[in-house]
Amino acid sequence: MEKTYTNTFPLTMTSSEKQETICIFGTGDFGRSLGYKMLQCGYSVVFGSRNPQMSSLLPSGAEVLSYSEAAQKSDVVILTIHREHYGFLTELTEVLKEKVLVDVSNNLKINQYPESNAEYLAQLVPGAHVVKAFNTISAWALQSGAMDASRQVFVCGNDGKAKQRVVDIVRTLGLTPLDQGSLLAANEIENYPLQLFPMWRLPFYLSAALGLFFFSYCVLRDVIYPYINEKQDSTFRLAISIPNRVFPITALILLALVYFPGVIAAILQLYRGTKYRRFPAWLDHWMLCRKQLGLVALGFAFLHVIYTLVIPIRYYVRWRLRNITIAQIMDKKENPFSASSAWLSDSYVSLGILGFFLFVLLGITSLPSVSNTVNWREFRFVQSKLGYLTLILCTAHTLVYGGKRFLSPLSLRWGLPSAYVLALVIPCTVLVTKFILIMPCIDKTLTRIRQGWERNYKYSKSALNGRSDI
Amino acid sequence: MEKTYTNTFPLTMTSSEKQETICIFGTGDFGRSLGYKMLQCGYSVVFGSRNPQMSSLLPSGAEVLSYSEAAQKSDVVILTIHREHYGFLTELTEVLKEKVLVDVSNNLKINQYPESNAEYLAQLVPGAHVVKAFNTISAWALQSGAMDASRQVFVCGNDGKAKQRVVDIVRTLGLTPLDQGSLLAANEIENYPLQLFPMWRLPFYLSAALGLFFFSYCVLRDVIYPYINEKQDSTFRLAISIPNRVFPITALILLALVYFPGVIAAILQLYRGTKYRRFPAWLDHWMLCRKQLGLVALGFAFLHVIYTLVIPIRYYVRWRLRNITIAQIMDKKENPFSASSAWLSDSYVSLGILGFFLFVLLGITSLPSVSNTVNWREFRFVQSKLGYLTLILCTAHTLVYGGKRFLSPLSLRWGLPSAYVLALVIPCTVLVTKFILIMPCIDKTLTRIRQGWERNYKYSKSALNGRSDI
Amino acid sequence: MEKTYTNTFPLTMTSSEKQETICIFGTGDFGRSLGYKMLQCGYSVVFGSRNPQMSSLLPSGAEVLSYSEAAQKSDVVILTIHREHYGFLTELTEVLKEKVLVDVSNNLKINQYPESNAEYLAQLVPGAHVVKAFNTISAWALQSGAMDASRQVFVCGNDGKAKQRVVDIVRTLGLTPLDQGSLLAANEIENYPLQLFPMWRLPFYLSAALGLFFFSYCVLRDVIYPYINEKQDSTFRLAISIPNRVFPITALILLALVYFPGVIAAILQLYRGTKYRRFPAWLDHWMLCRKQLGLVALGFAFLHVIYTLVIPIRYYVRWRLRNITIAQIMDKKENPFSASSAWLSDSYVSLGILGFFLFVLLGITSLPSVSNTVNWREFRFVQSKLGYLTLILCTAHTLVYGGKRFLSPLSLRWGLPSAYVLALVIPCTVLVTKFILIMPCIDKTLTRIRQGWERNYKYSKSALNGRSDI
Repeated sequence: MEKTYTNTFPLTMTSSEKQETICIFGTGDFGRSLGYKMLQCGYSVVFGSRNPQMSSLLPSGAEVLSYSEAAQKSDVVILTIHREHYGFLTELTEVLKEKVLVDVSNNLKINQYPESNAEYLAQLVPGAHVVKAFNTISAWALQSGAMDASRQVFVCGNDGKAKQRVVDIVRTLGLTPLDQGSLLAANEIENYPLQLFPMWRLPFYLSAALGLFFFSYCVLRDVIYPYINEKQDSTFRLAISIPNRVFPITALILLALVYFPGVIAAILQLYRGTKYRRFPAWLDHWMLCRKQLGLVALGFAFLHVIYTLVIPIRYYVRWRLRNITIAQIMDKKENPFSASSAWLSDSYVSLGILGFFLFVLLGITSLPSVSNTVNWREFRFVQSKLGYLTLILCTAHTLVYGGKRFLSPLSLRWGLPSAYVLALVIPCTVLVTKFILIMPCIDKTLTRIRQGWERNYKYSKSALNGRSDI
Repeated sequence: MEKTYTNTFPLTMTSSEKQETICIFGTGDFGRSLGYKMLQCGYSVVFGSRNPQMSSLLPSGAEVLSYSEAAQKSDVVILTIHREHYGFLTELTEVLKEKVLVDVSNNLKINQYPESNAEYLAQLVPGAHVVKAFNTISAWALQSGAMDASRQVFVCGNDGKAKQRVVDIVRTLGLTPLDQGSLLAANEIENYPLQLFPMWRLPFYLSAALGLFFFSYCVLRDVIYPYINEKQDSTFRLAISIPNRVFPITALILLALVYFPGVIAAILQLYRGTKYRRFPAWLDHWMLCRKQLGLVALGFAFLHVIYTLVIPIRYYVRWRLRNITIAQIMDKKENPFSASSAWLSDSYVSLGILGFFLFVLLGITSLPSVSNTVNWREFRFVQSKLGYLTLILCTAHTLVYGGKRFLSPLSLRWGLPSAYVLALVIPCTVLVTKFILIMPCIDKTLTRIRQGWERNYKYSKSALNGRSDI
Repeated sequence: MEKTYTNTFPLTMTSSEKQETICIFGTGDFGRSLGYKMLQCGYSVVFGSRNPQMSSLLPSGAEVLSYSEAAQKSDVVILTIHREHYGFLTELTEVLKEKVLVDVSNNLKINQYPESNAEYLAQLVPGAHVVKAFNTISAWALQSGAMDASRQVFVCGNDGKAKQRVVDIVRTLGLTPLDQGSLLAANEIENYPLQLFPMWRLPFYLSAALGLFFFSYCVLRDVIYPYINEKQDSTFRLAISIPNRVFPITALILLALVYFPGVIAAILQLYRGTKYRRFPAWLDHWMLCRKQLGLVALGFAFLHVIYTLVIPIRYYVRWRLRNITIAQIMDKKENPFSASSAWLSDSYVSLGILGFFLFVLLGITSLPSVSNTVNWREFRFVQSKLGYLTLILCTAHTLVYGGKRFLSPLSLRWGLPSAYVLALVIPCTVLVTKFILIMPCIDKTLTRIRQGWERNYKYSKSALNGRSDI
């Protein structure tokens, strides 16, 4: 084969044929940046322009011709023109025949047009092989080389060879091509750069709702109640004391919500006696944004940690501690050391720290570059085993924090329990249910279901059929 | 060449021949998920099944045929069947001849069978080109698109073209192929998904042993000793005080152990007078898990930092500080400001903070995506120069913490020194040895050895021979 | 096409022709490691050596021949020899004709020779297709598989096919090829491994200068002034108190400097009335190292946070708090609770924590693997919207910290204001200017300019020409 290599292409080795020529229609910012980058990577570049003489600021080394002249120079034409101006292409149908036509356009709004720009282009120029690509890359990034955001280029198209051609170009430019299939995917690819954290939306709204509810609840108990009953001004609590109740509560609930859908799914599978039925859509969506839920929870936990650590440097705390000391001296009261108080105080702090430590570990392993270096067994170990351990530690931290006061009628105000008592409902539910699910008899059934076994007879043949399959 | 492109394959451009067909044997979870993903990425998919009529839940758009019919539709056959059921393939030897046969199977245990599944398959179907691939990818990840764990697909096989074929498919699916060589590598590839953090095992056991030893040591000195001598109940120290001695000690020793093998290797090279002899296996293994050792050390350092920062909010500490104030008032003693105490207290804290800061920097640069953006000179600068600076700062932090009490006979209990004194042995050894090694005369010899020079005559010819080489 | 596949190359399928042979000239560390890795990945390897009999330590399975014999075995020759010893290649010109000759050499200094090693090689062996590659990979990394630093292999060369050949080899070895264009890029590629954080240099020097200035300023006000006026020894403040003023000040100024160049660029565009003129070089460079500036600022902010959190465990602080309590008891003064002090203290702490939290978020999203998963809209949202919010919170934190003392003549010492007052100049300037720039009338003009509109007539035609382009 090596022989063949040197024998077959001796002529193509001469320097005149070395470079591939790429044609770029349009001389806007993106067109120029792309041309510049392509020249850097060893391509010849020909710009097609409505007005070749007037085009300025083009990278040196590139030719500028009229659209139809430029298109004849290359069999790959990259279209860096807004969809609204595609009209002129109908005149070039003949020239563009059998060429690879790359659509890089984006819209201003999600689903702005009935069909994607690339599909519209394929209708306009039926003879060309339309490929969608490059729409996620910014002109500035191409030119400066500072690829801070994504290097990923989504590519789709109906013609396999045309697509491969574009994929090769993408790779040569040092970007990462991701084949998304046929031109039907163009719509999704065009919507992608317009998205703003779609997977974070549910976690964000959920945490906002939880945060607001518990904030109001704490304001009621800790600011309004003392004001009405004792005319005491506690508004300064709004800055640190109350946030430092809301944050840990929100974090704990969100963390529990990460593990809730898994428990629900298991119950559903047990109830249905098969895994071969789709989960409801809300459960699917919930399961897909567990990572984001967990990271938002970690954010709140982080805030809780720092808000807790600054306690001793707060004016109010120093004033109160001083007053306790003075009162003790004035009253000449004894101040015996309470070993049980020391135990309670130290152990709830210690549980919290260990929980936070594991939580940070979970966060780090969810970084794309870290999770990419572990295998599935390791990933599941961290996210499931360590995750449940984190939930247990954080729930225990809250329970021990309550300590003796927990559910004591003295801590009720207007019949309302402390906020942390409410916070424990979901985590305890999740932990108790999970505990039941891992009891041997139930776990065995669940494992069988997950391996393809079905309770109902009528499905079982297909299951038997697939039992030897992975 | 561009001309050739459009001329040679005009017929393949028609839409009917656009799509490549892939055959998948087996209709289990993984087979269906892979088929679904392949359809998405523009392939035609044909499933081969024992019982084509009974197969359910297959992705729409895919055909289901008998094994032998399906195999005839494509020259790539992906086998998603457990090894135990490979038997039927012997009947298909003729059909599978010259085809690319992809083995995706995994086992339940490491080294379960004498030979790898892929090699076993190659023996069963001698005419086919067996390629191992896809075994590290999970069905759920393929289907949901949530590629949280690895996108890496290890590929190996004896036939270069067959392997290239599979590599291209892997890439088209948006995964990252990693060529691992011939089919001999299949064993390692099949063991990979069964591993659970193999490189972390040594650091984990080491830190567990160190932690347990120092925990027992501290319990002896700080809980049992006061109990026996003064009948004082200090068990509450188990929650925070003692962990906050064990964590920094373990962190410091582990950090020193990161730099210890480098020092040993240098001494060994100096002693042997050549670099052309292998290090003992334990030293090699130790050197390969330095990163993990360092990260475990960072974990302990992180815990130490938080356990230290919560000191002022502990019940015990507040109680003790209050008592000191009260005692001072009662005794009407003067409380002169000691500048040297302030210096000692502030500088050990400051050294610790700076050490921790550099330690966190080291941790961040060891993230795969960060270390991937630096060159070797930068990586060595961070991991070696900054690493040693971290070790120096942390050792100094411990030394200054000891301060006046260091090695004082008063701090002996039952003849046992404080735990931090023991902790300093290894770090100081490493630092002193390193200091000796970087002295000009020794450093010069070491540098020459590392550039290929050899002390003994008999080896020196081969060294001379290689001196011009990189 | 699949038919063609099996029909055309039936002979190449026999096992004897399966493996491609690669020739490596030179048997030094790197040559051996590369050969070892290539054997692992399924290549045949032939070493070319000056003295084939004397070569030791070569990976088993590789052949060693004389240079000219070895070169005849393969059409890819990898040269792992130092540039100084390239002389012998002139005798091999005939053998190397039409071969792919890969230069992996590095120099000891940046721009050591007038032309790059690869260009020098191309002159020496004019018939060969010289490709530069592999120079950023270390021998140790190849052998141990611990690819801690970069897996990126920069490739450049004048011949497209030769380059493609090398790119394929790089990919087979599990490394990431990055095409850098023609051999002209070799100089840059050879300088790359010699660089030491070039983009971090400006941020580093800037922060060092700022840090030193504010350190001296604080020493003057807080150590020298009390010593001269009150003979008070405050040198212990050098360890924590003064660093904890210098760090937040430096962090705040550096953060403001991240957003300063964007504001300057906007003013420049408004003044010029066009975006089609290059920014001055200093502004370009400043804009390109904004990320590094921000990360250095985050480092200082992190130090500030920990230095602040340790305040209550410092000897000096405990001594002072005790004295305040004692003085209060002795004087029998009332100690009324000041709600406004509580508000001020809590809100500046709270603002600081929130600012730091957002700052950490910004830092995390600037990790390559994280920023790679967001699209440009999301990246801009985080880095611009959240970034400005961070700057606002941190500036507010500093303003509220000043509180009542702010600009009070009592806090002047030798006419010098507190350091934090100086620190506010640049952040406030940036925020006020930005506030003016986002006022509707100005923002509208700026948006039009950034869309290609130009104020001056003479340029406007080319703008019109490009208006339809992306």
